[in-house]
Amino acid sequence: MESMMIWMPIVAAIIGLLYMLVKQKWVMKQDAGDGKMKEISDHIYEGALAFLNAEYKLLAIFVVIVSILLAIVAFFVPTTSYLIVIAFICGAIFSAFAGNIGMKIATKTNVRTTQAARTSLPNALKVSFGGGTVMGLGVAGLAVLGLTAFFIFFFWFFMDSTWTNTMDMTVVLETLAGFSLGAESIALFARVGGGIYTKAADVGADLVGKVEAGIPEDDPRNPATIADNVGDNVGDVAGMGADLFGSYVATVLAAMVLGNYVIKDMGGSISDAFGGIGPILLPMAIAGVGIIISMIGTMLVKINSNDAKESQVMGALNLGNWVSIGLVAAACFVLCKWMLPETMKMEFFGEGLQEISSMRVFYATLVGLVVGAVISSVTEYYTGLGKSPILKIVQQSSTGAGTNIIAGLATGMISTFPSVLLFAGAIWASYFFAGFYGVALAASAMMATTAMQLAIDAFGPIADNAGGIAEMSEQEPIVRERTDILDSVGNTTAATGKGFAIASAALTSLALFAAYVTFTGIDGINIFKAPVLAMLFVGGMVPVVFSALAMNAVGKAAMEMVQEVRRQFKDIPGIMEGTGKPEYDKCVAISTQASLKEMMLPGLLTIGFPLIIAFVPMIFGMDNLAIAEMLGGYMAGVTVSGVLWAIFQNNAGGAWDNAKKSFEAGVEINGEMTYKGSEAHKAAVTGDTVGDPFKDTSGPSMNILIKLTCLIGLVIAPILGGHTSDDTHAKNEIKKEVRVEVKSGESEIAQATITTTTIQNGKTSTDIQEIKGTVAEIEAKAKEAGTIVSVNVEKEAKTITKEVKVEVEEIK
Amino acid sequence: MESMMIWMPIVAAIIGLLYMLVKQKWVMKQDAGDGKMKEISDHIYEGALAFLNAEYKLLAIFVVIVSILLAIVAFFVPTTSYLIVIAFICGAIFSAFAGNIGMKIATKTNVRTTQAARTSLPNALKVSFGGGTVMGLGVAGLAVLGLTAFFIFFFWFFMDSTWTNTMDMTVVLETLAGFSLGAESIALFARVGGGIYTKAADVGADLVGKVEAGIPEDDPRNPATIADNVGDNVGDVAGMGADLFGSYVATVLAAMVLGNYVIKDMGGSISDAFGGIGPILLPMAIAGVGIIISMIGTMLVKINSNDAKESQVMGALNLGNWVSIGLVAAACFVLCKWMLPETMKMEFFGEGLQEISSMRVFYATLVGLVVGAVISSVTEYYTGLGKSPILKIVQQSSTGAGTNIIAGLATGMISTFPSVLLFAGAIWASYFFAGFYGVALAASAMMATTAMQLAIDAFGPIADNAGGIAEMSEQEPIVRERTDILDSVGNTTAATGKGFAIASAALTSLALFAAYVTFTGIDGINIFKAPVLAMLFVGGMVPVVFSALAMNAVGKAAMEMVQEVRRQFKDIPGIMEGTGKPEYDKCVAISTQASLKEMMLPGLLTIGFPLIIAFVPMIFGMDNLAIAEMLGGYMAGVTVSGVLWAIFQNNAGGAWDNAKKSFEAGVEINGEMTYKGSEAHKAAVTGDTVGDPFKDTSGPSMNILIKLTCLIGLVIAPILGGHTSDDTHAKNEIKKEVRVEVKSGESEIAQATITTTTIQNGKTSTDIQEIKGTVAEIEAKAKEAGTIVSVNVEKEAKTITKEVKVEVEEIK
Repeated sequence: MESMMIWMPIVAAIIGLLYMLVKQKWVMKQDAGDGKMKEISDHIYEGALAFLNAEYKLLAIFVVIVSILLAIVAFFVPTTSYLIVIAFICGAIFSAFAGNIGMKIATKTNVRTTQAARTSLPNALKVSFGGGTVMGLGVAGLAVLGLTAFFIFFFWFFMDSTWTNTMDMTVVLETLAGFSLGAESIALFARVGGGIYTKAADVGADLVGKVEAGIPEDDPRNPATIADNVGDNVGDVAGMGADLFGSYVATVLAAMVLGNYVIKDMGGSISDAFGGIGPILLPMAIAGVGIIISMIGTMLVKINSNDAKESQVMGALNLGNWVSIGLVAAACFVLCKWMLPETMKMEFFGEGLQEISSMRVFYATLVGLVVGAVISSVTEYYTGLGKSPILKIVQQSSTGAGTNIIAGLATGMISTFPSVLLFAGAIWASYFFAGFYGVALAASAMMATTAMQLAIDAFGPIADNAGGIAEMSEQEPIVRERTDILDSVGNTTAATGKGFAIASAALTSLALFAAYVTFTGIDGINIFKAPVLAMLFVGGMVPVVFSALAMNAVGKAAMEMVQEVRRQFKDIPGIMEGTGKPEYDKCVAISTQASLKEMMLPGLLTIGFPLIIAFVPMIFGMDNLAIAEMLGGYMAGVTVSGVLWAIFQNNAGGAWDNAKKSFEAGVEINGEMTYKGSEAHKAAVTGDTVGDPFKDTSGPSMNILIKLTCLIGLVIAPILGGHTSDDTHAKNEIKKEVRVEVKSGESEIAQATITTTTIQNGKTSTDIQEIKGTVAEIEAKAKEAGTIVSVNVEKEAKTITKEVKVEVEEIK
Repeated sequence: MESMMIWMPIVAAIIGLLYMLVKQKWVMKQDAGDGKMKEISDHIYEGALAFLNAEYKLLAIFVVIVSILLAIVAFFVPTTSYLIVIAFICGAIFSAFAGNIGMKIATKTNVRTTQAARTSLPNALKVSFGGGTVMGLGVAGLAVLGLTAFFIFFFWFFMDSTWTNTMDMTVVLETLAGFSLGAESIALFARVGGGIYTKAADVGADLVGKVEAGIPEDDPRNPATIADNVGDNVGDVAGMGADLFGSYVATVLAAMVLGNYVIKDMGGSISDAFGGIGPILLPMAIAGVGIIISMIGTMLVKINSNDAKESQVMGALNLGNWVSIGLVAAACFVLCKWMLPETMKMEFFGEGLQEISSMRVFYATLVGLVVGAVISSVTEYYTGLGKSPILKIVQQSSTGAGTNIIAGLATGMISTFPSVLLFAGAIWASYFFAGFYGVALAASAMMATTAMQLAIDAFGPIADNAGGIAEMSEQEPIVRERTDILDSVGNTTAATGKGFAIASAALTSLALFAAYVTFTGIDGINIFKAPVLAMLFVGGMVPVVFSALAMNAVGKAAMEMVQEVRRQFKDIPGIMEGTGKPEYDKCVAISTQASLKEMMLPGLLTIGFPLIIAFVPMIFGMDNLAIAEMLGGYMAGVTVSGVLWAIFQNNAGGAWDNAKKSFEAGVEINGEMTYKGSEAHKAAVTGDTVGDPFKDTSGPSMNILIKLTCLIGLVIAPILGGHTSDDTHAKNEIKKEVRVEVKSGESEIAQATITTTTIQNGKTSTDIQEIKGTVAEIEAKAKEAGTIVSVNVEKEAKTITKEVKVEVEEIK
């Protein structure tokens, strides 16, 4: 059974995908309603497809360019295989396909949820969560399937499916990094482009429709209203899906790279029942089991009562989520015990090799699960309705927009405190338990429930859309009430989902960062070297500038939308009376084109900076290892600053949003109940306007920025560092040199000097020992002292009868 | 003459202080006006004194607590002297005294400027800039005087005024760090407390006065108006002064520490005409000469025409500034040539020892001067009236407060791009020229014109106050016109001054960071160690949370002020009719108390975090060097993130401010001229409300945060690292071992094997050479190959007539 373990994740992924198909079929069989409902839903579906098609065209160009670049790299760098190009293209295709599945099901499920809500709440939840489940399993299944299949293929191609040495495995994993790069590139388009799309459509629709023309939100007369609804799917469904697809793949990959490193530390090979690659297979196995567990988790999500309230729906989701997490913990225990050697050796920087038991790896996975759970609560605390930070922002709204903005900014900023302490603690603890392998496995364990997380996440926008369709198609109030319950729960899960996405991005980046260092073979990243420190600064700046560019992009794209809507209101006769039909597709096209155009500059920044840092100094003849260290400094800067800005922007945006929403039910300010339409509410709306691009565009983009930066570093790594032999670590260890000089002797008896030189921490001590005996005895004695590096048999000593031959080995 | 060079900076400082006294006397002799003018001015003066007195009380408590802590450290750590307590107390007193001089002269000059403006513009400039000069020379003079005097004293006390070794000098400089810590602690109170004060008074005065009571700004009926005017002086004069005082001292100190390190790299002692401490004296000499140069610079600032416009006034200031910078460059050339050995040896991490000519140190100082000049232009570009970023914000104001806020945030964020690239380039270049000594000297050169910079800076708020007094005392319009010209120039210099302050804080922190590493004797700071990486994250988070706390503090302090003003309006009869006298002092007291109370939490964060990181792991028995590395990671995180947030907040705040001011003269939006009172203007006012704490409280506080963090690190360093011997650096170098075996030979002719083992980057290669010759020849040949570590003369070889004796040296 153990030898078949390499196939297990594929089998799990296929089971997940089959279940997805079943679920998909079930959802599609549900009643899609009729008349206006169907019409609106179809518009949204077509708009989503239009965005996807436009995106795919641009993507194709991008993929071709990057493929050519990778091929050039493969041509010049002997250790880089051409297959990285194939892996890259497939990574992009798999991720795009997963996004496609998600978008399609989401835009098909919304109207079915509305229809189901006409019968009962449990049904509505079943349909909407069913759609989410399809999305979740599609993403997770394809991610694991693709990554595992390519690993098996490369393992066969480069190593004949048998362990040879860590260097060959490094080639396998370096090639596999192409798959991850492909997936993350799609995420750049989906998350950043999608983020710009959703807000451009939103702002554009509101500015002309609500403000200028005075028609309500989601009014079908507004040409931008479909684009607005498409945007919700593009940003929250496709964007989030591609983001987590990328994290999932990158995390498992990084853990595999570090697993290979563990084998290296253990002497270059281990013997276990898994063909000597247990530590490399483990992260894949966890991912595979995670799919099955998530599947089980999704089955638990249901309610029975038609009178259920938000808390019961939330409870159903929580049950599924917590059971999944618990099962993953149990699975990690079993898998760590089973697949890892009982004790491993791991190199800790500055502390040398340490013995690490497989249990400590399990503890590291627990750290990851805890982080995933806690970060959601932290996010919920800072952005949740009725929580004290939101109440404070509401209070501050009474003195105007200025104080509302300050309060929101401050909330976002302060929320970095527990979040960063949590991450820092997680890094420390998982590293303490099992080195960087532990950090990567913590991330892997957290990501194991990706399918479940995504199901919960995607359910939100589906319910939101369902509510919109109910409104637009003028359903009975009970329908809207039911979808509102789902929508309200969806808002909470959206916030916690964002926390999960940030945590996953942060841990993934750290794991990639660690993998990068091992790939380049550098000693570490010393920020006391000025060029490295300079790059740490530059890296820290990039997320800030990226965020600004993304925010400005929303503004520009929204302006184009505004002009188009104005044009239609003017040019189409009878549009305001409902007799003329607005050209929805034109608005969709504008939002699509503008978003994809505007994401170029931030995208270029993301991809360009690491390339400049790597290749410009190379042209000037700088040492490759020095460049690798600089690039590492840059990656660290981007990660630290990116995580901070992600938390700050997401939470500030979420807080403003809910502060505004608080007015819907009414809030008490200075003892007076205040509602929508009040001055305080207007101030809160201003805050929400600022928060929108924060939480939907620039904030979530940070995830992609930091992961993609670290991935690009990882792909460049072989060019910079080349492959290091198994003994690079020896540097900090004790070095012992034994020289034997056989000088003279009678018959079999020789006289010799054994010189033992010990180098430890840069200090040398020499011990000279004079001995007599047979040459064999001398040899034995010398070997006792350490590895013999040189043997001088004096030529003049006539009485020697035997020549000592000892292989001169490289000093360990 | 050379041997007296140690006294030069003191002499320069005393000359500067004497000139200051002359200037002060001259300013005080000017006509202070009469009646209402004098009354208002006296209120401001008294308010300022009230703040200072309250601050001093709190300071005294703080100084006592820290002194006790330092005394405890001195008790437990053998290398820390009790004298550090004295140095700390004096540093605090000197800085407080400098602030006192500045505040007093500023609050005395304002009314005299108004009076001078009644005669002519050249006179008004002469008086206001005269006040600024007093401030500038007071700060710079006291900083150099105190630091130099203590250095001379400690050099005498610990080393008997004669060079012994680098370890003794390290003790001298560690003790001197106390002075710097004292100075920077005051800056914490002045900059953070002052920043809260000024905004709390401003917001409080506006909210009740302008909004609730409907009386104009600066109206004497408003009880908070005096507090508001005091605030300008507290924040812009005392805060900026203390900030630069701290930078000045810390920069010179760090450069001295690194100068000592250069001597270490050169073998532990050098012989030059300066008693063997040329590299240590150089930064002090530059600081001393800088005072004299600044003095000359200030004399050049004057205009002749009474009809001069802003550009001429700006031109006069620029002339003084540029001449100062040019003269400092020339002085650096002469001093580097004269005081440094022609070539020095400096250790470059990973590259070993390098020969550095004194000219390269001069180039490093040029880098500093360039940074000082360029950062001002960058700041001016992003925040200057009429520049394209401001015009964009103005345009975005037309669609409401939300878009105005987004545009301002984006401007601040994007401004980090050129600024950070500039800093990164400066770090790289100055390090390239002369290692971290070069980085510190770049900072020293930039800070050499501190007196001039402060004169220009302080002139702004004086002119602003003068305008306010002119308004309140109802002078002829021509007076206000003249002060407005000065005020407008002052606004520009305020922005560029902030840029200078950030640059100085950034370079100072880097220099302190480098000094920290040398003090602890760690190998560098490797962020590939997880605990170090975790601390990098934590460090990155602290400036964000600090900023949020500072912003919230403004809100809370402002609320207290609001309540007091409301109470006075209600309780004091006839206050609105101008018959009842408002209790200005109560408002001043509230602002004072609230600001000092509210700065506690951010202050505690600043001081507490490094202490926790250093001492908590120590309790758990963690290795001291590992802790030192973690603390270094924390310091790097704070510095990188702090610089980013400083630039972001200052420039966003400045941009909003000037976007609002643009409406005063009218701006064209979508082809229409728009003025004050328009909807767009209201949106811009909201932006300015957000920007106020950004640019006056949290933004400038970042300077103190990063410097103080690095200084605390430096003071803790000896506890963590202990003193390292002179050869720790050898680790990364090529190691060569030569063994000579003299085996046999006739008469003087011996036969020998020379084995040369070379260890480089962990790889060992052995070269064996068989030679024949006299023992002397063999010895010579062997020495050619490298340092001889072992010589085996074979006992049996009877014909050897001479035994080779070579000292076994430690491998370098």
